[in-house]
Amino acid sequence: MTERLNESAKGVYIISATPFDDDGSIDLDSADSLVEFYIEKGVSGMTILGMMGEATKMSGDESDNFMRHMLKRVDGRVPVIVGVSDPGHNNLARLAKSSMDAGAAGVMIAPMSGLNTEEKIYAYFARAFSALGGDVPVCYQDYPQATGVHISVDCFNRLVRDFDQVVMFKHEDCPGLGKLTRVRQTAEEDDTLRRVSILVGNGGLYLPEELSRGADGAMTGFAFPEMLVQVVGYYESGEIERAQTLFDAYLPMVRYEQQPGFGLAVRKEVLRRRGAIANAATRAPGPKLTGVDHDELGGLLTRLENRLRDIG
Amino acid sequence: MTERLNESAKGVYIISATPFDDDGSIDLDSADSLVEFYIEKGVSGMTILGMMGEATKMSGDESDNFMRHMLKRVDGRVPVIVGVSDPGHNNLARLAKSSMDAGAAGVMIAPMSGLNTEEKIYAYFARAFSALGGDVPVCYQDYPQATGVHISVDCFNRLVRDFDQVVMFKHEDCPGLGKLTRVRQTAEEDDTLRRVSILVGNGGLYLPEELSRGADGAMTGFAFPEMLVQVVGYYESGEIERAQTLFDAYLPMVRYEQQPGFGLAVRKEVLRRRGAIANAATRAPGPKLTGVDHDELGGLLTRLENRLRDIG
Amino acid sequence: MTERLNESAKGVYIISATPFDDDGSIDLDSADSLVEFYIEKGVSGMTILGMMGEATKMSGDESDNFMRHMLKRVDGRVPVIVGVSDPGHNNLARLAKSSMDAGAAGVMIAPMSGLNTEEKIYAYFARAFSALGGDVPVCYQDYPQATGVHISVDCFNRLVRDFDQVVMFKHEDCPGLGKLTRVRQTAEEDDTLRRVSILVGNGGLYLPEELSRGADGAMTGFAFPEMLVQVVGYYESGEIERAQTLFDAYLPMVRYEQQPGFGLAVRKEVLRRRGAIANAATRAPGPKLTGVDHDELGGLLTRLENRLRDIG
Amino acid sequence: MTERLNESAKGVYIISATPFDDDGSIDLDSADSLVEFYIEKGVSGMTILGMMGEATKMSGDESDNFMRHMLKRVDGRVPVIVGVSDPGHNNLARLAKSSMDAGAAGVMIAPMSGLNTEEKIYAYFARAFSALGGDVPVCYQDYPQATGVHISVDCFNRLVRDFDQVVMFKHEDCPGLGKLTRVRQTAEEDDTLRRVSILVGNGGLYLPEELSRGADGAMTGFAFPEMLVQVVGYYESGEIERAQTLFDAYLPMVRYEQQPGFGLAVRKEVLRRRGAIANAATRAPGPKLTGVDHDELGGLLTRLENRLRDIG
Repeated sequence: MTERLNESAKGVYIISATPFDDDGSIDLDSADSLVEFYIEKGVSGMTILGMMGEATKMSGDESDNFMRHMLKRVDGRVPVIVGVSDPGHNNLARLAKSSMDAGAAGVMIAPMSGLNTEEKIYAYFARAFSALGGDVPVCYQDYPQATGVHISVDCFNRLVRDFDQVVMFKHEDCPGLGKLTRVRQTAEEDDTLRRVSILVGNGGLYLPEELSRGADGAMTGFAFPEMLVQVVGYYESGEIERAQTLFDAYLPMVRYEQQPGFGLAVRKEVLRRRGAIANAATRAPGPKLTGVDHDELGGLLTRLENRLRDIG
Repeated sequence: MTERLNESAKGVYIISATPFDDDGSIDLDSADSLVEFYIEKGVSGMTILGMMGEATKMSGDESDNFMRHMLKRVDGRVPVIVGVSDPGHNNLARLAKSSMDAGAAGVMIAPMSGLNTEEKIYAYFARAFSALGGDVPVCYQDYPQATGVHISVDCFNRLVRDFDQVVMFKHEDCPGLGKLTRVRQTAEEDDTLRRVSILVGNGGLYLPEELSRGADGAMTGFAFPEMLVQVVGYYESGEIERAQTLFDAYLPMVRYEQQPGFGLAVRKEVLRRRGAIANAATRAPGPKLTGVDHDELGGLLTRLENRLRDIG
Repeated sequence: MTERLNESAKGVYIISATPFDDDGSIDLDSADSLVEFYIEKGVSGMTILGMMGEATKMSGDESDNFMRHMLKRVDGRVPVIVGVSDPGHNNLARLAKSSMDAGAAGVMIAPMSGLNTEEKIYAYFARAFSALGGDVPVCYQDYPQATGVHISVDCFNRLVRDFDQVVMFKHEDCPGLGKLTRVRQTAEEDDTLRRVSILVGNGGLYLPEELSRGADGAMTGFAFPEMLVQVVGYYESGEIERAQTLFDAYLPMVRYEQQPGFGLAVRKEVLRRRGAIANAATRAPGPKLTGVDHDELGGLLTRLENRLRDIG
Repeated sequence: MTERLNESAKGVYIISATPFDDDGSIDLDSADSLVEFYIEKGVSGMTILGMMGEATKMSGDESDNFMRHMLKRVDGRVPVIVGVSDPGHNNLARLAKSSMDAGAAGVMIAPMSGLNTEEKIYAYFARAFSALGGDVPVCYQDYPQATGVHISVDCFNRLVRDFDQVVMFKHEDCPGLGKLTRVRQTAEEDDTLRRVSILVGNGGLYLPEELSRGADGAMTGFAFPEMLVQVVGYYESGEIERAQTLFDAYLPMVRYEQQPGFGLAVRKEVLRRRGAIANAATRAPGPKLTGVDHDELGGLLTRLENRLRDIG
């Protein structure tokens, strides 16, 4: 059994893709190879069934089966967080329960759309936590670009104070660097406020800045997890210059994957080209690369290789 | 077996609530009594698992079971349309197939969020229809207030031309009276364009105007289906004055149920007070009436009774 | 000089239209007749350059001139509030200053779009108030359907506590009845919190409920101000039944004017038919009635007349 | 007098900032130095009063005066486009006319919010063009992230066909690479469709890809215009490798300036540090850098210098 997720989590929790066949069925062989790919690249943990995992396009049974398959394959080598966001608390709690029973380290929840005041956000999570039970560790996913829900630092801190199970903040508000700084600073300045783990998303587009500001690592799905792992590692060992040089080399690719809505198709294609999965298909309705896109991507990958050789 | 839905559909297709217990489980006894209530009030058809049916908060299995239960209970007395909107085409097609197999008359689909040009809307439906197969009759739900997707009359007509299975337009754009007129007029002026059935939503808030402009009836969940049935009937028999007087009597209640997001709680409470369901609970997270709301609603219901007595 | 707006304001502050010619120039003769029309109908105050006043389509100079013209014509007979919402605080403060200098009773401000947390809303108004100076009375316009900004009752109360110049709450959130109740109740239960004036918008669609819940009147542009005046008056004198009967008679018309975006064209046409203004044109780009709309409106007006005769 | 803008425009049309003092007044001395800065860096043209120019926070008179001042200072050395987007066509046409009279090369228009179907977009521009007159060259600003308006390639092409004055497409939809390709391809494949100029925005974040796909240059406000100028120049002369290497060196900075809503404060601060303007203040309400932001920016600028030295 894996340890439960807690405030000390750090490193890279890769957001896993969900591999599909052309006909839209889940490709479990690719799921296996993808797990090995991620672990080989040195990730500290894994998050499945996130937005990038196309979770909303899967049925409850499919999510459940995929979750079990992944947990079994990972087999405790790294902790696994399961995305359980859902319009209904019943579904949310059901998947959370079966995930924890199957050995997950914790769950990730993004607020549902339409929570437009702090009291609504707070009430939503209070209710969700009561559905979950108090022993399920939770990562709050702060991704307003997708959810439309904007939580203030004050309100997030209130959740941290009132619910011990809130142990992680997935930071991907944008612009959000100031928010990250304040989540970190308010906890440092106030002994009564727990210091939670902060992992950053947005494909890592602001990773160096975020690590400087106190993030503990990344939780995102960039198709070169080794970059995330190394940059986070270099920052931890104080090799800032080295971290930045490496980051800059990958930045054209990071940026290319961060095209909103479309980037998922890019990411899966890179994973395919790298041998991590057999098929880059997204489930319908989903984005698709054109011939022009394929050529462009090829060019970017070649430039990346060259640049990596240069910096040795 | 029920007949398949076609362009001649008219009257009132009531949007059915989904009854829940306090703990969020589906209350099948209330589902039965609700079916009887609707049929007794004279509806021509029924639509289940729409937005008002809280479908997004149910699991795939729950939706499937509820659909089967309702179809069995209705037992062919009126045609049943099943809402199958889903972020993923796999889930959408699966529920559509099992619904048609179980005897549904057709399905209703609202476009997923984010379809912001006509070509994206068209492509989305073309792909959805191909997942469905060409023999499943479809009602297009035009509800931009919820989906954020705005279809033009041109684009809808292109779907009608290219896909014979598009047989019904659920009109609830607002402001949308001009659009309804143009959907109707373009079909009247062009022999090559099929005249589809138009049923209107928005709780019936503009029902008299919409019937005048060529709507064939209503598809909405107002908790007094008999009003919808009578108004549509009076319009059909040319008793316009009588229709309007009746409509006006109910209008304070119609308006009260149309509070966006909140109206569902009102509607279920009215259904409960009328004996149609045992419990007014919405599934979490959902709206709830306060004591003040309950008193206010009581006052409105009394006024309605009085007014109905007045107009005899 | 008019008295300054304060917390005791009540009755009907009609939101004034801005009359235009067909070529889009401001029709000052109609502005004059419109003022007389409103005052004759018994309004307690007037609000100019609100959203319904098409303020965003006017230049700064035009707004300033129109404001001066209206204030001169009103000539202190009723207090006038000027809408000064603007993307920039410079423009906002400039119009506020010239309005107060010209004899306005106060100003109305809606938050700019994009304020998505309480601290941002608070900071925005703190900054706006500092640009205004502390002696300008302010009405907070709570209209999230247009602004996208949702203020909680807590946050509004903080503004009331910290800024004496906040004297009025224009309530038009929807669903918003619960919010109105809580704004009123929190002030009643806490002696340290000023009780501000609450006037309601949304065309009066929930006027009876809102008056029951503690609103002091209405601030909206319904083209039959006499209904608003009488309903508010009947509520004040405790003639609730009479108020409701009158309200219900106008409700089909209230509802018809409340078509979002489109209702302005209806409202101006009704004002034109009633002789209040010479031309119903909205400034480009703005909504326009079709022939079908004109006929429909005619029918509604006839029904209203008949119904008013009935309840005599 | 400058030549009118036409379809052959290419190179870099820099989007100019509007310099303000701390008290929010326009700093005309900085406007002068900014013009010299831009021209010295080799821009082909200039666009003033765009979104980045904080135009919505200026009064009509201020916009007019600033426009005249800038045109006089530029004095025909490069063509100047004036952003004239406005909620009202009267204001839009007034500023366009005075700009053209003062020697502008053309105007830029972004569609107003709320145009949610192709026919509404088309009608809006048809009406705007009729207000402008047919001889004013227009750049269509396609920036849905800010406007919420999504134009399809079909609809844009219809505007190009029907209105000769549409000569330029400012591309900043995102993801939008596929759209750019199709705007270019549809014109190449159809002799009856004019090939308009395409300049790209989004701070240049996808500039190499966009130039490869047929863009003619950039129209954006990146604070290192010389990078844009050189990259566009290298692409024109076929030195792709050199272009990409230079672009990549600047990419960390490009990305940092592209933080939505916040980037403007970064950009103005960089312009200040480079001596182009005296004060980095944005007009209230606007973003502001913290101490942490200032340090972070300093670090990025040092890295940029180092990297530029490396690639020599």
